[in-house]
Amino acid sequence: MQRYFAKEKVENTFILEDLDYHHIKNVMRMKEKEEIEIVIDGILYLACVKNIIGDISVELLKELPFKQDKEVQKTICIPYLKEQKMDLILQKATELGVDEIILIPLERSIIKNKEEKENKKLERWTRIVKEASEQSKRLHIPKIIPLKDLESLKNLRGLKLICIAQRECKSIKKVVKTGVECDKISMVVGPEGGFSPKEEELFLQMGFIPVHLGKRILRTETVPLYLLSILNYELME
Amino acid sequence: MQRYFAKEKVENTFILEDLDYHHIKNVMRMKEKEEIEIVIDGILYLACVKNIIGDISVELLKELPFKQDKEVQKTICIPYLKEQKMDLILQKATELGVDEIILIPLERSIIKNKEEKENKKLERWTRIVKEASEQSKRLHIPKIIPLKDLESLKNLRGLKLICIAQRECKSIKKVVKTGVECDKISMVVGPEGGFSPKEEELFLQMGFIPVHLGKRILRTETVPLYLLSILNYELME
Repeated sequence: MQRYFAKEKVENTFILEDLDYHHIKNVMRMKEKEEIEIVIDGILYLACVKNIIGDISVELLKELPFKQDKEVQKTICIPYLKEQKMDLILQKATELGVDEIILIPLERSIIKNKEEKENKKLERWTRIVKEASEQSKRLHIPKIIPLKDLESLKNLRGLKLICIAQRECKSIKKVVKTGVECDKISMVVGPEGGFSPKEEELFLQMGFIPVHLGKRILRTETVPLYLLSILNYELME
Repeated sequence: MQRYFAKEKVENTFILEDLDYHHIKNVMRMKEKEEIEIVIDGILYLACVKNIIGDISVELLKELPFKQDKEVQKTICIPYLKEQKMDLILQKATELGVDEIILIPLERSIIKNKEEKENKKLERWTRIVKEASEQSKRLHIPKIIPLKDLESLKNLRGLKLICIAQRECKSIKKVVKTGVECDKISMVVGPEGGFSPKEEELFLQMGFIPVHLGKRILRTETVPLYLLSILNYELME
């Protein structure tokens, strides 16, 4: 069954985004009274589509039971990347259950974030994670948080990891095995050129544990998907 | 250092593909006597570029030592998919160390393989895995094997898994934990619509063990990357 995140719930009617009404009507070509799932504030509802020909509306039928797992919060911190790579990470990380995607300014990142374009980009990225959340039947849309400076990462609680290609640090496996007991895991991924020495030092000062990912050479956009895959695996019963 | 797979080695000269000469000359803009890495037959060489302005050639300098790990052979069997998804799997699976990608005909696959187009597609796919192998510094290019029928999969040796969304089967974690001792692991991924009952039965008859991947709903193209990530993780020391 198709799932949409609603913007608002007014009595028994859900208010959706215009794009979603369009999707219901013209992409899915739903019929009058067809049932859909609606999520709002992390609650799942069964709803139905009315007035499909005229002024379409989505009406509540009933609240649906669901198992809200107590889960480890998963945060990835990534540099600004080229559009295609960014889109890939946003979509796949959402499927793989990421909770927060923090965009961080890094010296060696090829893409510099331009403030005047940020709102437009953020709108696009928000749409991607919303659609991926609907498709992968999530109850929460991951948050996208652009940061102006690295220092604010010191406030992240829980296990904090930074992926560094050097072999002198521990493997991700050794650290994650002992770390899945905490309620939040944050993982920092660098740009192709790596972190600058200054950045590396700052992360270590802020309590990030350096880990290596094994002997494979992965592209930047592959690393978050690799990290989230192994976290899902490690947290699996 | 840039790495290329050579087609042939004639005494102290490596023969590369035309695209690679073009890459050296016009994309990388290498200088006379610049050093590169060459791989042929799983052996790594240091080489240098000569006659960069005229009739470019690549000359052997010395054989390089490398650690050839005794590794578990990793095979993924996937349906024919749309171009963009196929490209993504080929590139990322190569980074994540896949050895064989077997393309299988499945009833519910949206893309049907047309024999007359297969050679052209195979050429394109081969280029993608070659480039990804060079970039991720591999010594072997994964094989791409298009299959006409499923029955020949019965000859695969080692641990054979099929990903089925049903919850009645064991989790991938339980099966992989006990299976990393074998020398080869093959994993079958279905199309969005799943396997037909007939196909499912055939796989089970051929000794494939059904596994589920946990509670996440992943797109078809995400599954091979998830599987290879967790295998890398499980095999990590």
